[in-house]
Amino acid sequence: MILEAAMLQVKPGRTENFERDFREASAYISQIPGYIQHELQRCIEDDHKYILLVRWETLEAHTEGFRQSEQYIEWKRLLHDYYDPFPVVEHFSAVYP
Amino acid sequence: MILEAAMLQVKPGRTENFERDFREASAYISQIPGYIQHELQRCIEDDHKYILLVRWETLEAHTEGFRQSEQYIEWKRLLHDYYDPFPVVEHFSAVYP
Repeated sequence: MILEAAMLQVKPGRTENFERDFREASAYISQIPGYIQHELQRCIEDDHKYILLVRWETLEAHTEGFRQSEQYIEWKRLLHDYYDPFPVVEHFSAVYP
Repeated sequence: MILEAAMLQVKPGRTENFERDFREASAYISQIPGYIQHELQRCIEDDHKYILLVRWETLEAHTEGFRQSEQYIEWKRLLHDYYDPFPVVEHFSAVYP
């Protein structure tokens, strides 16, 4: 299992719409083969910051399967304009447990 | 539920010892009232970078319960020397799901 993680900084005043559109976008990512689960959490210390965590069966399920899909076009359309700066997305594999 | 998240950058050449000591340190954090679960994952794009995710019942279980505990003294003793720079720790609350 692979964890995709990104810290998201949302433009001032746009968090409410971002959260609404994230719910809509969630229907697209969850259709992808190899998708396991995802969560969005909002930072208590900085209310325009979020952490996105997506669990995939393999790295390629994200980097190839999702990013080359029709669903990714919808995901981008709904979400990419909210971010400033554009987020760094990284992948992780479990050490513990 | 509160998610504690931190990106950890480990000093060059010290990842193997860090992972060993993290396993030992895990026994301390998991004793704290309000602790739910934690995971350590290693970055695929940067093999000296890790993400630490800890789930707590409340913010105070971490900021007061753990940080003022005897167990935190052991956690620090085992782990704090591995980091450069010292990590920023933030807390998050769920938006989705």
